[in-house]
Amino acid sequence: MSVAVPHLLLTTGPVAAYADVLNALARPVPYDGDPAFLAFYEAVIGKLRTAMRLSSLPVILQGEAILGIEAAAASLIAREDVVLNLVSGVYGKGFAVWARRHGAEIVELQVPYNEAIDPAAVECALKARPDIRVVSVCHHETPSGTLNPVAEIGAVVAAHGGFLIVDAVSSFGGMDVHPEAVHADIFVASPSKCLGATPGLTLLGISARAWEKMRSNPGAPRASFLSLLDWEHAWRRDRPFPVTPSIAEIHGLDAALDRHLAEGPEAVWARHALTASATRAGVKALGLDLWPSREAIAAPMVTVIRVPDGLSDVAIRDTMRDRYSVLISLGRGETAGKVLRIGHMGPAAQPINAVTVVGALGGACRALGYEVRISEGCEAALAGIDSG
Amino acid sequence: MSVAVPHLLLTTGPVAAYADVLNALARPVPYDGDPAFLAFYEAVIGKLRTAMRLSSLPVILQGEAILGIEAAAASLIAREDVVLNLVSGVYGKGFAVWARRHGAEIVELQVPYNEAIDPAAVECALKARPDIRVVSVCHHETPSGTLNPVAEIGAVVAAHGGFLIVDAVSSFGGMDVHPEAVHADIFVASPSKCLGATPGLTLLGISARAWEKMRSNPGAPRASFLSLLDWEHAWRRDRPFPVTPSIAEIHGLDAALDRHLAEGPEAVWARHALTASATRAGVKALGLDLWPSREAIAAPMVTVIRVPDGLSDVAIRDTMRDRYSVLISLGRGETAGKVLRIGHMGPAAQPINAVTVVGALGGACRALGYEVRISEGCEAALAGIDSG
Amino acid sequence: MSVAVPHLLLTTGPVAAYADVLNALARPVPYDGDPAFLAFYEAVIGKLRTAMRLSSLPVILQGEAILGIEAAAASLIAREDVVLNLVSGVYGKGFAVWARRHGAEIVELQVPYNEAIDPAAVECALKARPDIRVVSVCHHETPSGTLNPVAEIGAVVAAHGGFLIVDAVSSFGGMDVHPEAVHADIFVASPSKCLGATPGLTLLGISARAWEKMRSNPGAPRASFLSLLDWEHAWRRDRPFPVTPSIAEIHGLDAALDRHLAEGPEAVWARHALTASATRAGVKALGLDLWPSREAIAAPMVTVIRVPDGLSDVAIRDTMRDRYSVLISLGRGETAGKVLRIGHMGPAAQPINAVTVVGALGGACRALGYEVRISEGCEAALAGIDSG
Amino acid sequence: MSVAVPHLLLTTGPVAAYADVLNALARPVPYDGDPAFLAFYEAVIGKLRTAMRLSSLPVILQGEAILGIEAAAASLIAREDVVLNLVSGVYGKGFAVWARRHGAEIVELQVPYNEAIDPAAVECALKARPDIRVVSVCHHETPSGTLNPVAEIGAVVAAHGGFLIVDAVSSFGGMDVHPEAVHADIFVASPSKCLGATPGLTLLGISARAWEKMRSNPGAPRASFLSLLDWEHAWRRDRPFPVTPSIAEIHGLDAALDRHLAEGPEAVWARHALTASATRAGVKALGLDLWPSREAIAAPMVTVIRVPDGLSDVAIRDTMRDRYSVLISLGRGETAGKVLRIGHMGPAAQPINAVTVVGALGGACRALGYEVRISEGCEAALAGIDSG
Repeated sequence: MSVAVPHLLLTTGPVAAYADVLNALARPVPYDGDPAFLAFYEAVIGKLRTAMRLSSLPVILQGEAILGIEAAAASLIAREDVVLNLVSGVYGKGFAVWARRHGAEIVELQVPYNEAIDPAAVECALKARPDIRVVSVCHHETPSGTLNPVAEIGAVVAAHGGFLIVDAVSSFGGMDVHPEAVHADIFVASPSKCLGATPGLTLLGISARAWEKMRSNPGAPRASFLSLLDWEHAWRRDRPFPVTPSIAEIHGLDAALDRHLAEGPEAVWARHALTASATRAGVKALGLDLWPSREAIAAPMVTVIRVPDGLSDVAIRDTMRDRYSVLISLGRGETAGKVLRIGHMGPAAQPINAVTVVGALGGACRALGYEVRISEGCEAALAGIDSG
Repeated sequence: MSVAVPHLLLTTGPVAAYADVLNALARPVPYDGDPAFLAFYEAVIGKLRTAMRLSSLPVILQGEAILGIEAAAASLIAREDVVLNLVSGVYGKGFAVWARRHGAEIVELQVPYNEAIDPAAVECALKARPDIRVVSVCHHETPSGTLNPVAEIGAVVAAHGGFLIVDAVSSFGGMDVHPEAVHADIFVASPSKCLGATPGLTLLGISARAWEKMRSNPGAPRASFLSLLDWEHAWRRDRPFPVTPSIAEIHGLDAALDRHLAEGPEAVWARHALTASATRAGVKALGLDLWPSREAIAAPMVTVIRVPDGLSDVAIRDTMRDRYSVLISLGRGETAGKVLRIGHMGPAAQPINAVTVVGALGGACRALGYEVRISEGCEAALAGIDSG
Repeated sequence: MSVAVPHLLLTTGPVAAYADVLNALARPVPYDGDPAFLAFYEAVIGKLRTAMRLSSLPVILQGEAILGIEAAAASLIAREDVVLNLVSGVYGKGFAVWARRHGAEIVELQVPYNEAIDPAAVECALKARPDIRVVSVCHHETPSGTLNPVAEIGAVVAAHGGFLIVDAVSSFGGMDVHPEAVHADIFVASPSKCLGATPGLTLLGISARAWEKMRSNPGAPRASFLSLLDWEHAWRRDRPFPVTPSIAEIHGLDAALDRHLAEGPEAVWARHALTASATRAGVKALGLDLWPSREAIAAPMVTVIRVPDGLSDVAIRDTMRDRYSVLISLGRGETAGKVLRIGHMGPAAQPINAVTVVGALGGACRALGYEVRISEGCEAALAGIDSG
Repeated sequence: MSVAVPHLLLTTGPVAAYADVLNALARPVPYDGDPAFLAFYEAVIGKLRTAMRLSSLPVILQGEAILGIEAAAASLIAREDVVLNLVSGVYGKGFAVWARRHGAEIVELQVPYNEAIDPAAVECALKARPDIRVVSVCHHETPSGTLNPVAEIGAVVAAHGGFLIVDAVSSFGGMDVHPEAVHADIFVASPSKCLGATPGLTLLGISARAWEKMRSNPGAPRASFLSLLDWEHAWRRDRPFPVTPSIAEIHGLDAALDRHLAEGPEAVWARHALTASATRAGVKALGLDLWPSREAIAAPMVTVIRVPDGLSDVAIRDTMRDRYSVLISLGRGETAGKVLRIGHMGPAAQPINAVTVVGALGGACRALGYEVRISEGCEAALAGIDSG
């Protein structure tokens, strides 16, 4: 029996998958050693390369994106490396655990969790510690709904000669961000956010110098589920896969890439951006506050709002779900209890959802005794779409 | 576009998935924090517990079975542990890499790859080295099609007071093997072999004393994709998942367990056993040789045969595929080039497939100039079914 | 490649199907003569009987509902029969074609297409023409969004001793209407409206006296796709089906009935009713007019509104689709060009959709230069849900 | 819960559907009035036209193929027409019911049900009765497994100036037969036989003169589920569909046509032909008799064999199903009790199935006490493939 899924899933991940993806998951299972499957796998890698705008071949790891992030840390950061970890939220902070585990020393540049990293500050930090070898940054802090200026940060790191790890798990596919454009050495993306596929894989763009550094890192995992090196040549038809691929997930990814490229990345990004701006307009008109310190850093993927004074985040979430069958997400880690998060990624990136969720959110607040301006909220959300 | 899957997939994994599993993969994606999903996950854990005949709750790791095996080694084997690794094939041998990585010393008891481990030899080895703390064994050596007597070995290890890791990846679900019955402390199984689901998860049965040992092992991975400890309480509805579950795979597993329990495990085992005995009868009547030294240790899951003198394994495999649309597997590691492997797991465990594959194998040998007795082969395979 | 389906389908049929239905359509195809399929078919008939609250067995015809209506006319109406055709809309009117084709004379009782039939008028008509043998009525006039009081009409017809054909195609499953409760002799329903399955079958409840009348009607189709008599014993396992069943559609119906009964018919009806009342409240608050002459006869399945003066129905529909990805239906036949129709059947019967569609409709009107009160509309739709 | 489908379905229809078809059935349901759906429908019509090699547009009726055959009779045969009905089996005979219902007089040319119609006899019959206006023939008599020489018959009918109705329901897609090549005025085909889709639609090729004759036939159904005329312009985007299309079935047909054209019709035909010849070789070597009087008229779609003396058809069928999970069909009508039928259409048209079914059939006969030469049967089936 299927899980009873709410009518409208506006969560921060897993998100609803596109219908084409769900159908693709049901394709018959081929044998991973069959030349027909190897040719198919190569074709998927090719589509992913196109979507990632890579000059080299991307890598697919057979576990959801956190595997890719841990693998990046374990593989790229050598025992002697000093790491600059840029922290503007829960995921950036979390990376420190792995950086510390694998590196020599970790330097952190931290801003409040509703702020973004300033590239100039990164430049200062690198000047202060010329021995910094690896820099890590989370592009989209999903628990905060904020973006870091990765392209600018990447330029600074490149000028410094450092290696850059970019967590673009919840931004890739939903906006204009690509590995080489942001000077990433390892760029970690996910099929289960803006691409609208299911969780179970990590998508990685890896630079030539990152491969070289990993190969020369004796601590880099080999013969391990955490290994990136094991996968360097996985695209070659004469090599067996290091581990059995998650075949159904590869099928889903194939369909997700097909539809992403068919709709056109620019159109997909515009859909995400318009949904976000309309949602923000509606939420503000309701009389609620956005969590990001300013709209310029608010992400097109997730709209994060402060929990209204005196209300419980769980009560609002549950009321929206029970009364309107609209499900949003709570905060996470540091932002838990402080925020509510409206995801609009993949199929949920539909501008009209702004009207719906603002109505549902407004209705829940009112039902819990908190006065909001529902009429203005819906009207503003709609106007936000129309002005898009 | 789907991969063109051969008509009959008699591979050793990935194997064809049951139709109910494929359909379940296409279910809508719920949010992993939704109470409705948490209740569903708990129900799946409950079904798995029933199938595994466990008194405690099993664990699902979010990567295919090799993740579970590596995680077991990394978690259970402490820096000071002496490990006895039982080797009767490629996978047993492969475990040594992880045992060596995490333990103090590794002792190996090895037999030829067409033989099985003798429990008496295990007893001797343990007597010779009373400091052995962990024993590891692969139940079904898929590259050899041979079974080790895990229940007897388990009894010996238990009497010794050791901890036992059992790789039952390609046997669980296809025959009568369960964690507690074989005294396993960590028992590693897979949805994508005899259960007929897709690769992407590991299923683990873990004893109370294994949990205790892992908790007290400072080297056991924590905050890692390789961690078992992170998942100890994942079944609790008030805890977030350590990583996002591979939701589609959980859907598939749910359907696989439903049909496994509905058909009845005993009936499923009988289907595997009959397919195997009929296939062995047919192959021998063709005039070919089985790889296992004796039929008593031949597995009900995979029939492994020696490549006929003068023929190429690849040529036979390709001829069977191209001419008859029947796909079997080659050898792996040490057995590569020496054997051909006919998988009959999950939906492929259908006795009549014995007739089909014996015909196709015979036809391929003959086409390549090697004389076989096709009439006798098919007749014997059929008789093998009828005598079942 | 899939058809690009708008984000929100609020059409009057075909409507979006439930996810469980879509998955069921993908089940493997069994042979219709296989005893396993016959047992399954019988089980589906049993579920349908439960849903229809029938004391006898229902019939499934292998074509969408218009087949069932034509078959009912052709089978029940004999060459000598006088038929009273009750007309309150396009579908009622359309039935006259078949009544005239098969009967002796047709008497029509017609009301404007935004009105409902008065049972007292039916009583008068029957008194005026005691020779009326068959009465036909459409319960829910989908092109008008209006309901006729079928239970009361049924009582009048029963007192008269007439035979009653009820077209409940777009109401069954969405509200409390069942064959025996409305004294229907032939009750025609559909899987592809409120049950949320796909078009391709008709569901019929047939009284014992209707079977008798058909058997004694020499003109009733036999050995024909239009035949009902051919199907009288189709549920019997020892009879072959008159025509090959549309197996995938039966699979879909099975899943639709499972979920209908699992959610509970009363809960399904409440969901439809609340969506409709909230939508009506929102539409009125926008400043638009409902098509039905009074709300008491407005259906819980479809909300029909007058096209605002000076606007084009097609322009509104297209603007809603292009700008907001919300698709509604135009009028049909007599109501074409005069109305717009918002369907909320099956999965679309979600109260929060009232807010969404009122926003989208308001936005389209405004974009086309027609002033509406969007704030009030959304607010009223939400209030309509909250007061439900 | 899915119906438990036997492992190998070698039935005469419904047959197993291709995986791509099953997946397509699960696509989301669009609205039939949506321009996006109309464009899609037009594309499907275009693919069908290609597959049918038509110079005009084909028609899709929304019910399984018997609807198309009845509709052809009702539409083309006028009240004054004399019909020559060619009978070589159950379906040809069955057509007489409809011909008689709609025409003035019916002339029958009948041969034994294991024989084929001789075109010279048709020529004689037409000369004897110059007033014959319509000729009907079944190309592949599925209950007999025999083919009629439709191209030659068509040439004779064309020379006579008659109208030809061809029932190609179970041959189209499985061999080289197309409407215009056989001079058919109405050519009736099915998605659920050799195309490997599901039952629920009829595919029709209709000549310009047939359209003209139907338009001038006052008895041709109009405003009816049985109407062909209603569908003449259904492909036009500015016309509503006469009845709601069975959308899921259209999705399935779309996928079936895609894969048919991608594999290549010639390759599909070769696959059917080779499966049939290998099956016939095997069956004969078993020591059983084919039903067709000679192999030259045996169809590539179905192999029909005589029930061995003293055995029950049902017992053989049931033994094959229960013991080997291979399901074949019984006879039908006149051939019921006399024959067993092995279907190899669509995905079942796999040459290696010849070995499997010959083994299973042989095993069943032997189990029931009838001596057959199983070794020779399997060997001959395999040799049949290899000589192909």
